[in-house]
Amino acid sequence: MWSDLKARLLGLVVPIVTPMHEDYRLNLDIVPSHIDYLLANGVNVIIPCGSTGEFPSLTDEERKEMVDATVKAVNERVPVIVGASDTRVSSILEQARFAKEVGADGVMITPPYYFLPTEEDVLAFFKYIDERIEIPFMFYNNPATTKFNASISLLERISTLDHFVAIKENNSQPVRYYEELERFGELFPVIPAGEPPAIFNILSGAPGFLSVAANFNPRLIMDMLRAAQENRIQDAFAYTLFEKLRTYRQIFEDRNRKGYPMYVVFAKAALNLIGYQVGPPRPPLRPPTPDEINQVRKVLQDVMGLEVV
Amino acid sequence: MWSDLKARLLGLVVPIVTPMHEDYRLNLDIVPSHIDYLLANGVNVIIPCGSTGEFPSLTDEERKEMVDATVKAVNERVPVIVGASDTRVSSILEQARFAKEVGADGVMITPPYYFLPTEEDVLAFFKYIDERIEIPFMFYNNPATTKFNASISLLERISTLDHFVAIKENNSQPVRYYEELERFGELFPVIPAGEPPAIFNILSGAPGFLSVAANFNPRLIMDMLRAAQENRIQDAFAYTLFEKLRTYRQIFEDRNRKGYPMYVVFAKAALNLIGYQVGPPRPPLRPPTPDEINQVRKVLQDVMGLEVV
Amino acid sequence: MWSDLKARLLGLVVPIVTPMHEDYRLNLDIVPSHIDYLLANGVNVIIPCGSTGEFPSLTDEERKEMVDATVKAVNERVPVIVGASDTRVSSILEQARFAKEVGADGVMITPPYYFLPTEEDVLAFFKYIDERIEIPFMFYNNPATTKFNASISLLERISTLDHFVAIKENNSQPVRYYEELERFGELFPVIPAGEPPAIFNILSGAPGFLSVAANFNPRLIMDMLRAAQENRIQDAFAYTLFEKLRTYRQIFEDRNRKGYPMYVVFAKAALNLIGYQVGPPRPPLRPPTPDEINQVRKVLQDVMGLEVV
Amino acid sequence: MWSDLKARLLGLVVPIVTPMHEDYRLNLDIVPSHIDYLLANGVNVIIPCGSTGEFPSLTDEERKEMVDATVKAVNERVPVIVGASDTRVSSILEQARFAKEVGADGVMITPPYYFLPTEEDVLAFFKYIDERIEIPFMFYNNPATTKFNASISLLERISTLDHFVAIKENNSQPVRYYEELERFGELFPVIPAGEPPAIFNILSGAPGFLSVAANFNPRLIMDMLRAAQENRIQDAFAYTLFEKLRTYRQIFEDRNRKGYPMYVVFAKAALNLIGYQVGPPRPPLRPPTPDEINQVRKVLQDVMGLEVV
Repeated sequence: MWSDLKARLLGLVVPIVTPMHEDYRLNLDIVPSHIDYLLANGVNVIIPCGSTGEFPSLTDEERKEMVDATVKAVNERVPVIVGASDTRVSSILEQARFAKEVGADGVMITPPYYFLPTEEDVLAFFKYIDERIEIPFMFYNNPATTKFNASISLLERISTLDHFVAIKENNSQPVRYYEELERFGELFPVIPAGEPPAIFNILSGAPGFLSVAANFNPRLIMDMLRAAQENRIQDAFAYTLFEKLRTYRQIFEDRNRKGYPMYVVFAKAALNLIGYQVGPPRPPLRPPTPDEINQVRKVLQDVMGLEVV
Repeated sequence: MWSDLKARLLGLVVPIVTPMHEDYRLNLDIVPSHIDYLLANGVNVIIPCGSTGEFPSLTDEERKEMVDATVKAVNERVPVIVGASDTRVSSILEQARFAKEVGADGVMITPPYYFLPTEEDVLAFFKYIDERIEIPFMFYNNPATTKFNASISLLERISTLDHFVAIKENNSQPVRYYEELERFGELFPVIPAGEPPAIFNILSGAPGFLSVAANFNPRLIMDMLRAAQENRIQDAFAYTLFEKLRTYRQIFEDRNRKGYPMYVVFAKAALNLIGYQVGPPRPPLRPPTPDEINQVRKVLQDVMGLEVV
Repeated sequence: MWSDLKARLLGLVVPIVTPMHEDYRLNLDIVPSHIDYLLANGVNVIIPCGSTGEFPSLTDEERKEMVDATVKAVNERVPVIVGASDTRVSSILEQARFAKEVGADGVMITPPYYFLPTEEDVLAFFKYIDERIEIPFMFYNNPATTKFNASISLLERISTLDHFVAIKENNSQPVRYYEELERFGELFPVIPAGEPPAIFNILSGAPGFLSVAANFNPRLIMDMLRAAQENRIQDAFAYTLFEKLRTYRQIFEDRNRKGYPMYVVFAKAALNLIGYQVGPPRPPLRPPTPDEINQVRKVLQDVMGLEVV
Repeated sequence: MWSDLKARLLGLVVPIVTPMHEDYRLNLDIVPSHIDYLLANGVNVIIPCGSTGEFPSLTDEERKEMVDATVKAVNERVPVIVGASDTRVSSILEQARFAKEVGADGVMITPPYYFLPTEEDVLAFFKYIDERIEIPFMFYNNPATTKFNASISLLERISTLDHFVAIKENNSQPVRYYEELERFGELFPVIPAGEPPAIFNILSGAPGFLSVAANFNPRLIMDMLRAAQENRIQDAFAYTLFEKLRTYRQIFEDRNRKGYPMYVVFAKAALNLIGYQVGPPRPPLRPPTPDEINQVRKVLQDVMGLEVV
């Protein structure tokens, strides 16, 4: 099933930020130029309304507006997978229906995240959804936010559902990811998330990976991906690639590790600095401090060689 | 501030279930008789759209319908505190506005629960809300579902906000609760949640407590509360009271401890059994198995002496 | 079995510190006067070489010397239960043999604590010991240091061993302790450890409790125990009792909660201050800072009314 | 300091099991042939009395006997690093003195593991040791057993002590290990532990790694090490290498992940099967079940091509 889409879920996958005005209203005018910037640098898959897109802070209507703007801007050049997670199953179904209606290629769904479910509950939840949608879904295992970590055996059972197409795996510890890839890699895409373990995951044979930093520096991340894919290990780790990214991540890594999604608020800050006015994150997220923004500016200019406005 | 309401936030506080049809549509016709059953047994405060009310599974519209039905049914006999938590701050504000409009007494709000916030973020989040609402709020510290456990010092800072009125504390380990009560007990209500530690918390001086089991057996819980308040410790723990409750909780305690809200699905099952047709829980929650329902039936009849239909 | 000893394992149980010189050699001359101080204030059971006695820092020979000195000083006035925990099962057996030889009443043993065992391993470990000792043992469930938390079902199985006599329970959250007492309270002593939850545990029916602070202020702890036993709840919690203890514990509670045994190093500091020269703790433990010692001095004098040298 | 030894701490590092009779007495006659087997297959460093050597179950005397036998058997062909961890600092000093006396090259020491120390305590503990030993030490960060996870900043401070020579790192998540190697790799050896992440760590530039499975199949592990060192990634992961090891590890991985040291009891079982009679592990460890031993036998024969007796 879905073999066409499966064949296209690879390479550099980018969950895009949701642009906002200073008063937190959506600012969708900026979407087309941001998308063009990403696709011009070779990005392979676009995901609106993921965690990076602050989906839990958006209303159902706002999500649809963002999805519509994204699908139009991408215009079938690469697959668009719509973040459709919610605690309300009715909202998931509605987002999936809308994604299908506007021509998106699939939806991405996490397990529910307020009540802590058992594996049986999660399976029943996805079966319930599977019977009511008409678009393929990517299962997103994201224990950092949902506090639910799917076992290999649950992934196996979910992968037999009719509309299942792929796994996005954010429990990307290289050893676990390697085992998952061994088990499922020839059946469907298993896409690892996160930059720090990405090189290891590519060396294990990952078909690509998901990067939030690619929102503002897709070229760097593409180069890193290619170096790893070509087994140029020294290059992949070298100061021209992974180390450049580390310089950026070190500004916020400590707080990020404690679970706060610093990667979202810093991606928005970096985009603002290079001229894509995506505005602030919405509460409960808060923008970096002026001092942190200065550090980002320095890294963008001096380490990454990007033009800062 | 809010001294009238503060004086009424005591005794037996009941977060009510949201009645549904078998197809998960709301079934609000049952609300008035359920409310009458609770108030006839002396319940002191009613909370619609809390975790027990499955708020994360309801749309904004459904929440308003449930709140409206509850406020009308209570008809000012006791305070109504409306669960207004959400990941979307705009929805919190809208629920608070509506609660005020229909005449509820206050709202109850947890910290946001998808992105894991820092204490500074939570403070900023509540300041943002505080400046935009016109109804008092009860801060709900609920680490079991939000994964965020407020420090005493954060509680102190939140308690200075204009619309703050009380704390509901679900980190109700008796030693922690005792310390919180020592610190805040004379300033505003600190209401502990959960039946197992309730007797200890009352002995420490709690003004009351929150019980989900009171949904179907308010008399038992009231008797337990009174025995503890009157220092009749043997009575409070005795087989006629706390031990009866333990017999019920033992059916699901193991899974409950692992984080799954068994207390919700069993409260609905018990209400169905005694004739209040509140229906099933909505996905991702699932009703008890037939075998478990039989166990509940036995406890309701044989241990608690309730009439089962 | 062991009904005589079971009947005497109640009231105030005190794990005593191991006195040392400044260079960390044992200083056993002080043991008799310390024991007399405790017994004069009504202490009911003495435990040498527990965690408070820094057993993991003592050699096998030093442990025997401390045990010998304690048994001689107590001189059959109250039961002596010897801490015999070790990672080496041969050392446990040797400490148990020696305890029997010098006339101690029992030994206390935790699960092994370097390799993390399963419940089956712990059961096999205690069976192995049980078949080779000739003195009753108290099982000590102490997840704070061993990282192993015995289930009720494991306790049940261990309690059937020939030399089993009692449980010391340091997972003393009041709700768990209550359940354990309900299950085992009529069969053998279940002694809760730790001062903060002690009042709750006594109200639940505990036969007594274990207090480290009783090393330097046995009278205060005895008064607290009696107030709780007599259901004088206001007294038990009042500023004359539990609140006095809280003033002392607040000096170090934060670090204690993170797992470091502050209660040991502060008990030694307090004893030094009131004239029992028990010296410093041995590495890896370190004495309080001068500033912290000043805080202790102030609490001992001003809050507790003890004479400080 | 210690530049000679630093230059030799690389390649395949093997913590050896401690051979025992069926009644748990040491059986040191087997040590020379086991050592010869390892060195004949190119093993670069030998560690007696590590966790794999069941040090916490051995008396001080037994540890010395095992160390003496090992140093004599190795006979200066490769470095011998003696596991000297203990909760008793006096025992650590005595083991270090003895290691020096018999001609070992260094000692390996974990943070203390019963009382949970702070970073300041651990630093003070190692300073205390450093001032009293005359042999270089390797700091062993082993959170799985000690529950203490050293920060990069603590490692930095410990690395300035006079007798410090290297780090053994068992928190070998590839991303953390990569960061540690970036920080310290040019100053001293940082040796990762554990087979599953080993390939990733070698690709990051690790000077070698520690393998328990090398006790019974040193050739397989050496081949895997070389393939990774030569960037032959497909080979390193291929069925001829890492996958063979996975077949073995899958027999016990689940229980191993829960913290129980299955790798020790299975290494002993495998050695017994290929003719090195190292006997059973000592309590609290227990040998594999007969069924598990059959599974090991099958893997040794059919997958690894070893001769089984």
